[in-house]
Amino acid sequence: MDVNIDRIMNHLDEIGRISSGTKGYTRLAYSEEEDAALQWLKTKMEENGIPTKQDRVGNVFGRIGQADAPVLLMGSHLDSVFEGGLYDGALGVVLGLECLLRIKEIGINLNNPVELVAFRGEEANVLGGTFGSRAFAGLIEESEAIKEKLEGLSFDWQDVESVRNRKKYLSYMELHIEQGSVLEANEKQIGVVTSIAGIIRFHVTVKGKSSHSGTTPMDMRRDALLYASKIIQEVNQIVCRFGGDNVATVGELDVHPNQANVVPGLVNLTVEIRGSKLNEMKMIEEEIKAYIRKHFEAETRQLIEKAPSELSRDVQNKIIEACKNNFVSFMSIPSGANHDANSLVNNMEVGMVFVPSKDGLSHHPEEFTSVEDIKVGSEIMLEVIANLCTD
Amino acid sequence: MDVNIDRIMNHLDEIGRISSGTKGYTRLAYSEEEDAALQWLKTKMEENGIPTKQDRVGNVFGRIGQADAPVLLMGSHLDSVFEGGLYDGALGVVLGLECLLRIKEIGINLNNPVELVAFRGEEANVLGGTFGSRAFAGLIEESEAIKEKLEGLSFDWQDVESVRNRKKYLSYMELHIEQGSVLEANEKQIGVVTSIAGIIRFHVTVKGKSSHSGTTPMDMRRDALLYASKIIQEVNQIVCRFGGDNVATVGELDVHPNQANVVPGLVNLTVEIRGSKLNEMKMIEEEIKAYIRKHFEAETRQLIEKAPSELSRDVQNKIIEACKNNFVSFMSIPSGANHDANSLVNNMEVGMVFVPSKDGLSHHPEEFTSVEDIKVGSEIMLEVIANLCTD
Repeated sequence: MDVNIDRIMNHLDEIGRISSGTKGYTRLAYSEEEDAALQWLKTKMEENGIPTKQDRVGNVFGRIGQADAPVLLMGSHLDSVFEGGLYDGALGVVLGLECLLRIKEIGINLNNPVELVAFRGEEANVLGGTFGSRAFAGLIEESEAIKEKLEGLSFDWQDVESVRNRKKYLSYMELHIEQGSVLEANEKQIGVVTSIAGIIRFHVTVKGKSSHSGTTPMDMRRDALLYASKIIQEVNQIVCRFGGDNVATVGELDVHPNQANVVPGLVNLTVEIRGSKLNEMKMIEEEIKAYIRKHFEAETRQLIEKAPSELSRDVQNKIIEACKNNFVSFMSIPSGANHDANSLVNNMEVGMVFVPSKDGLSHHPEEFTSVEDIKVGSEIMLEVIANLCTD
Repeated sequence: MDVNIDRIMNHLDEIGRISSGTKGYTRLAYSEEEDAALQWLKTKMEENGIPTKQDRVGNVFGRIGQADAPVLLMGSHLDSVFEGGLYDGALGVVLGLECLLRIKEIGINLNNPVELVAFRGEEANVLGGTFGSRAFAGLIEESEAIKEKLEGLSFDWQDVESVRNRKKYLSYMELHIEQGSVLEANEKQIGVVTSIAGIIRFHVTVKGKSSHSGTTPMDMRRDALLYASKIIQEVNQIVCRFGGDNVATVGELDVHPNQANVVPGLVNLTVEIRGSKLNEMKMIEEEIKAYIRKHFEAETRQLIEKAPSELSRDVQNKIIEACKNNFVSFMSIPSGANHDANSLVNNMEVGMVFVPSKDGLSHHPEEFTSVEDIKVGSEIMLEVIANLCTD
């Protein structure tokens, strides 16, 4: 099923123009720019005769089709990181809009209504990433902490509670850029997402003794950075030895006192493990922690433990079928990044489609997906949605 | 020859009270507190009938003995780092003052005059450390850069030029805390300083590629922090394999972008090598740089290259003799830290005496040298000075 690629690119361009700052694209969560982008979507749907709704935290919905069957939801988000790219989030919303418009134009007869959503506050923010979809899924628990954080915003706890969905949905479909370079490296146009990675993240404080770099002989040093460098190597070796789709990263590291003439006395670092199998992730975590315990004076503090999510086999098969029908190259791929889709896995069948990111760049002004890949992605989305709703 | 240890401790205490801040001791270079401490010394000498002089950058001198023979100079500095200790610098000045006072009290007949100096701005500062002694030694070259830096201070380039010493001095003696724990570990009360370490310092920028920690498989990463961790290990291994009194340190390291969920794209670090033999230091430097060149995409930029200084054999022998005469335990030891003494090695015979630093702590509020060690140090200084000036 063909799409209107010029319209898609125009819509992307229109959203891209809603941005603060001078470099890349900036529509931070809960900012005026995010509000304006959500308003843009609402207006665009209304102009095309699609009834819309905006809930009390700002999530925007638009629906076509009859109302008395489970609804198929699709969408993504319109906020961005600071100086981010054009495609992350926005592409999924624009292609969702294109699907609605094409379904109307072609006159596909739907058994299930199709609803587009732009979730609010997906990127890292004061309420935590994927906020809008977690609120929709009822995953946000009442606490003093969350109420305090809400104080600076335009909605309160009653608003958050009010947006919790209690209806039955058929499934949720999200198209997103890969944000990695696996598709590009494998020369595939479509990634069929199998799972969304779990995350284990912990903080490590490695202790040494800070001393004068000139007056402390090598055999009398307790160099916390030398210790930390061994941990970094070991983290890498453990996860590579383990294999599978597990990854582990030391991305954040601070040295104290961080002076050229002082042997470092203390190093803080974070270890992050991601993968699609929680038991494997936990084995890697334990091996890293055992190594640290055995060799160093260090303290660890848990930051995040989030189980991986398996996505719907049925939806994956539908995506694969659509790729085969259209002679489009594809591969199954786990998502290492988190997405709004992850918030909904316990509420409905969830599927995700990835399109390639040039050089794997994301959260960056030079984030890029080719027009050709966008066209293929939107055609596959349209076909899968049509299939799901006409079964 | 005995000293008045109560007077010494009182003098130390009086200088310690000249401090800003609430933690430890703060008399920064060119601050009001440094000025006040220099004034304290001047007043103290004048009250005891010792003629004084303050040069145009603030170095304070006081002299006893006849004027027509080469002068023996001794001293140290009165400035401190931010929240530093009581002993670094101040102890050398206080013990120098005690030597002058005891020579007068005992009535030692000097062949050479003895002069005490408190050099200005020894600690790291806008004009570079050991400023006062370098100005005295004529080591500061005229440049636009230095003139710019002088603009915020109470003296100008003409003042700096005016303090350059053109007289012949017999020798310079400095007592200083070790700032390391070699004496303590070896249970020695006196360190006979053999040399002041040279310093080679260079900056390394290690390049990788920053990418999403979740979406970048292990085999597609270019993790600059993993590369840096290998450099840190290799720096340590190369210098330990080389041996001697060489040390090498990665004390400063910054990760970019330094986020838990981003594979580091760039790491900046400094490598510092210190030792008493420049050829060995250069071999270590070359081996480290060759390793970096061979394995990584990196840029290096030279920051400091300062040759080591050998101290006077004659003075070392005089110190050893005094220790033996007084049954005081001693060891020969290179100084890994820089000192005012280093500024003067090309102008006169230079000797240094170290006393122990508890736990090697220095530049720290808990810096500590025992009264017993101070007493022994001052007695050895007095005997060496008396010997040098009555030969």
